[in-house]
Amino acid sequence: MNKQKTWHVAVLPGDGIGPEVIAQATRAIDALVAADPALAIEYETFEWPSHAWHEKHGESAPADYLQRLEKFDAILLGALGDPGPADDPNRYLLSDAVSLSPLLEIRKGFDQWCCERPCRPMKGAPQYLADERANDIDMLVIRENSEGEYVNQGGRMAVGTKNEIATQVALFTHRATDRIIRHAFEQARVRAAERKAEGRERSFGRDGKTSQVCVITKRNAQRFWGDMWTDMFAEIAKDYPDVATHHELVDAACMKFVSHPWMFDVVVASNLFGDILTDLAAVLNGGMGVSPSSNVNPSDRSRPPMFEPTHGSAPDIAGKNMAGPTAMLLTTAMMLDWMGVEDEAAARAGNRLRDVVAADLADHGRERRATDETGDAIVAAL
Amino acid sequence: MNKQKTWHVAVLPGDGIGPEVIAQATRAIDALVAADPALAIEYETFEWPSHAWHEKHGESAPADYLQRLEKFDAILLGALGDPGPADDPNRYLLSDAVSLSPLLEIRKGFDQWCCERPCRPMKGAPQYLADERANDIDMLVIRENSEGEYVNQGGRMAVGTKNEIATQVALFTHRATDRIIRHAFEQARVRAAERKAEGRERSFGRDGKTSQVCVITKRNAQRFWGDMWTDMFAEIAKDYPDVATHHELVDAACMKFVSHPWMFDVVVASNLFGDILTDLAAVLNGGMGVSPSSNVNPSDRSRPPMFEPTHGSAPDIAGKNMAGPTAMLLTTAMMLDWMGVEDEAAARAGNRLRDVVAADLADHGRERRATDETGDAIVAAL
Ligand SMILES: CC(C)[C@H](C(=O)O)[C@@H](O)C(=O)O
Ligand SMILES: CC(C)[C@H](C(=O)O)[C@@H](O)C(=O)O
Repeated sequence: MNKQKTWHVAVLPGDGIGPEVIAQATRAIDALVAADPALAIEYETFEWPSHAWHEKHGESAPADYLQRLEKFDAILLGALGDPGPADDPNRYLLSDAVSLSPLLEIRKGFDQWCCERPCRPMKGAPQYLADERANDIDMLVIRENSEGEYVNQGGRMAVGTKNEIATQVALFTHRATDRIIRHAFEQARVRAAERKAEGRERSFGRDGKTSQVCVITKRNAQRFWGDMWTDMFAEIAKDYPDVATHHELVDAACMKFVSHPWMFDVVVASNLFGDILTDLAAVLNGGMGVSPSSNVNPSDRSRPPMFEPTHGSAPDIAGKNMAGPTAMLLTTAMMLDWMGVEDEAAARAGNRLRDVVAADLADHGRERRATDETGDAIVAAL
Repeated sequence: MNKQKTWHVAVLPGDGIGPEVIAQATRAIDALVAADPALAIEYETFEWPSHAWHEKHGESAPADYLQRLEKFDAILLGALGDPGPADDPNRYLLSDAVSLSPLLEIRKGFDQWCCERPCRPMKGAPQYLADERANDIDMLVIRENSEGEYVNQGGRMAVGTKNEIATQVALFTHRATDRIIRHAFEQARVRAAERKAEGRERSFGRDGKTSQVCVITKRNAQRFWGDMWTDMFAEIAKDYPDVATHHELVDAACMKFVSHPWMFDVVVASNLFGDILTDLAAVLNGGMGVSPSSNVNPSDRSRPPMFEPTHGSAPDIAGKNMAGPTAMLLTTAMMLDWMGVEDEAAARAGNRLRDVVAADLADHGRERRATDETGDAIVAAL
């Protein structure tokens, strides 16, 4: 065992139910640290970015917030977004500007170019599909998180007139496409190895490969980047002859995520298509309430990654001790997994937390419990 | 009753299973015409656009094919696309170029700016969702069909090198946005009136309006066109105070199409988001096999509309008399509905055909039947 590493985590509770659910996450971290002398995690909690901060200071976070976050090993985020009073016609507009832009700025600022959202339904989670093979779903959607349809280029001309025209430009570079597709192939190998170790091999394609990467485009209507992705995917695949390859158009992929999602293994998609497909994957998982997510920079582990549940801030139930913390706890487990690459104690803690959450969900998934009641149960089990 | 109108239909069987399924459609049309002296439909069948034509003539359709189609009242399309031999690495690329571009050219050429795909599961159709409220799904997805993410602008720079950059531009005009959003509100009113007549009113929003339009954007990440659509939607809504309004981000909308699709009424979306959501809606309907679709120009009925099932050409089962013709027959009913706006006999025929197909599906939906066996049953019932 290496010299013990102390992990420094920036905890950003955010808006709405964020503070409530993240409180259960920090309790779980405390319990894990208390139980294992080899594990050292320190965290600092910030009131920003948030609507509350915006109200006090006229901005959603201090001007230097990226610099302040930079020195942490990881960022754990609750939820962002608060549409404000229901009768304010601009409520969503305001909300987007105030707290969602920091979210995108953090991703961009630390070049968190890869967003991963695993999809493997857990016992006790809501099941939306009728087919029982839905229990066999086991896929990982990998989203390009740094460019593409999210570059925020374009504009509006003659705003509000009959001549108005709006443009929105999507931009794809070789650099970002190459790294995300390669990462997908690497993850396919990791998954195949894990399945082998656990004796649950899968077989893909005519020649029975043990893993698969499916690339998503809309090449038949968006030819420029669609062709670039397709060409690069074919090139990169040559370096991974052990991994089966597949291509789906985004519309067909969405359909197949409902009709037979158990066919997929690793899915790699652009920023927008990844956004759409990870949300669908979250439903397959049992919904937002049980779906964790990570934003990481696999090529530079010195840049802080951000871990956030896929759910939003759910302002309707905020402050009522009603929100389920399961997604937040699984998100915390993903953070521990990420630390676990360098730190055995963190790896153990991640597995431990995930097991405890899974058992809790299996036993109590159908009950309505208070946020801290679930937290109590988790802490007791840990 | 007006002087009888003779409708001229261009029948384009296309590729793969197209010819087989469209044969059942023309049989049904013949039977409807034979049964009702007030109904007059004549059709002409073309071998193009198709891969077969491409093989013979080096192009997927004659150069003047749009001019030749222009004089018809409507176009009935089977299916397009043939990926070619499974071992050709360029199979899909070739397929796209050969027969999908005519599809987009017909939509564009006749300014078929509105694509409608109704979603109301029929008895006997496959049901993918576990919740029984899925039987209550009754929505209409309206897709902007003329511009947006499909304008085919952009390019690739430094192709195939490490410096490659691809751009893809989406373009939205006031004109096209205005007409599609207004059309959605109009359709919401039509649907509310129909529901009232049938005694199955629905209620939306706090003040219990009888219909709803939900607009889809990705405004929090694609701000330019997202803001334009949101602004215009709010403006246009003022002209329809009787219709409830709603907004969903595309990712959340996809999720809700799985978790509680019965909440939606009319959904209006851009070309790409409409493509994605109509494919999801097709799954909710019971899949491609039962999902019809229309491409129409509601502002100029002199331009021929095109009716096509949502399924593709299914080359694997082509020529085997195995493909289900249900989607194609329901598509034909949509064409008759469109004629029915001017022609009572066509309106009756559309309803009749839909009823017969629905009864057939309820009785035999779970059986594997030959294509023409289903056709025989439909023709016998008509
Ligand atoms: C809030 C929004 C900008 C964000 C995105 O689209 O990336 C969210 O949907 C997500 O998936 O994390
Ligand atoms: C074939 C393709 C270009 C087309 C589209 O995206 O419009 C298809 O998916 C559809 O929905 O009709």
